[in-house]
Amino acid sequence: MNTILKTDKKEVVISIDKPFVIIGEKLNPTGFKKLGQALVDQDMEFVKKLARRQVDWGAEVLDINVGHPQVEEIRMMPRVVEAVRSVVDVPLCIDSNDPGILEAGLKAAPGKPLVNSVNGEEKQLASVLPIVKDRGAVVIGLTIGEEGIPKTAEERLKAAGAIIERAAKMGIPAEDIIIDPLVMTVGHDSGAALVTLKTIELVRREYGVNINLGASNVSFGLPDRHSVNSAFLTLAMQMGATCSITDPVKLGSVVRSTDLLLGKDINSMRFLKYFRTTEKLRELEAAEAK
Amino acid sequence: MNTILKTDKKEVVISIDKPFVIIGEKLNPTGFKKLGQALVDQDMEFVKKLARRQVDWGAEVLDINVGHPQVEEIRMMPRVVEAVRSVVDVPLCIDSNDPGILEAGLKAAPGKPLVNSVNGEEKQLASVLPIVKDRGAVVIGLTIGEEGIPKTAEERLKAAGAIIERAAKMGIPAEDIIIDPLVMTVGHDSGAALVTLKTIELVRREYGVNINLGASNVSFGLPDRHSVNSAFLTLAMQMGATCSITDPVKLGSVVRSTDLLLGKDINSMRFLKYFRTTEKLRELEAAEAK
Repeated sequence: MNTILKTDKKEVVISIDKPFVIIGEKLNPTGFKKLGQALVDQDMEFVKKLARRQVDWGAEVLDINVGHPQVEEIRMMPRVVEAVRSVVDVPLCIDSNDPGILEAGLKAAPGKPLVNSVNGEEKQLASVLPIVKDRGAVVIGLTIGEEGIPKTAEERLKAAGAIIERAAKMGIPAEDIIIDPLVMTVGHDSGAALVTLKTIELVRREYGVNINLGASNVSFGLPDRHSVNSAFLTLAMQMGATCSITDPVKLGSVVRSTDLLLGKDINSMRFLKYFRTTEKLRELEAAEAK
Repeated sequence: MNTILKTDKKEVVISIDKPFVIIGEKLNPTGFKKLGQALVDQDMEFVKKLARRQVDWGAEVLDINVGHPQVEEIRMMPRVVEAVRSVVDVPLCIDSNDPGILEAGLKAAPGKPLVNSVNGEEKQLASVLPIVKDRGAVVIGLTIGEEGIPKTAEERLKAAGAIIERAAKMGIPAEDIIIDPLVMTVGHDSGAALVTLKTIELVRREYGVNINLGASNVSFGLPDRHSVNSAFLTLAMQMGATCSITDPVKLGSVVRSTDLLLGKDINSMRFLKYFRTTEKLRELEAAEAK
């Protein structure tokens, strides 16, 4: 199943038959004070720099979240969207819990953008899905039901199914839904990653939809988070995850390596190109930092 | 199926239900000039240091290969085995193509050692398996047939089966055989890793035996080999590989991370202990290097 995201001129295809798609996560002030301050100061140059850097490092889509206590989100969202559009031509992922903010972002985003996110609670489905449908957007569906995040893969599959079926009734096709199976930290529960991997397998087998992964929760509270996040991304890709909202600077090379190993990179072209590009970027960034 | 390796006092269990076992690869002069020179100079202190370092970094078994044009291997092998035994108490893996050198190493190694390796060629089977049987050792069987390394997973399965069945006729049980499915570089053939992963799956399903992986061939000729090797090890562990002859300093953290994610490390105990130990080692080694 092909999920297609678009700008005016460009499209990005997310599919099990294609290389894995990185959705850059850095345009989000949660836990990123410097961006929070930039938003408060209306410093769009910082926003543009972050956008460009992520695309340079291999992000094919950019997530945009402007949640910050001192920021009027509904006005800020379209401003950030405009700033990002002015420097990079990639599909955008409008990220908010608030339907009004989603609408404001979607209005400013061209082509066929992504909405992050809806979950399986009736209230959310009723408020977010109509916006997705009206805009002809794609939506990330989190496997959360009325009772929160289910503990088993089978229940998460059910939550995914509820979202997919509810969307279908409204005329949103399955290819416009990307399921996020969620992951808890393995620091608290040794079986947490296995539940997510199993959910990926079940959702793919049952619905064939694309799967997104927010890979960094898995290592919360642990040291050497990079090793855990990298390995988890590789495991999830093998099970059928097709995109991830993540940091391309940190995880780009593991994604390109895993695509190569899974036979999705004929003659290592993408891998080699990524290596050459990022080697140059590393040098440039080191020189700038001096 | 449990494969048990032993010294006089200690045993190491290789099993799909247990954490992955690292067999330290560094005691091998191939491509490691400094060790080659140390062997020529009969410098056993260098050998001891390498042995200790690998065990400190998480190797539970040590491979020993003394192949070097200026070294009389049949005399050197037992000397190196003795030197290693004098500093660490771990099962040893005697590594040679020559039955005489294998015998010399096995004679000096205590408990139940590992033999690296036999392949599916009749000549090799006839010369190596009797030695394994007499010594009550465990042997690594490479999936190579009379016509070399098969191109497909199905043919590699057949080569594995030939070794297992031939060994069974001689009274060597399946738990004393570890199959190595071999891997070619993905730099030359984009499907190379997939063939190996598929072989792991088929051999495990058909015979349930333990699987060893020589993980570093896969990235031969590519840049950023570490990313490719790490991702490949993770993929192979998910498919059912249970041990690897590899460098614990480089790949220890990906192994511990993947075990944790696959639910083989209750309360993250091994992961956290490995992190603390290696942090200290990193500091010590940095101080020594000054």
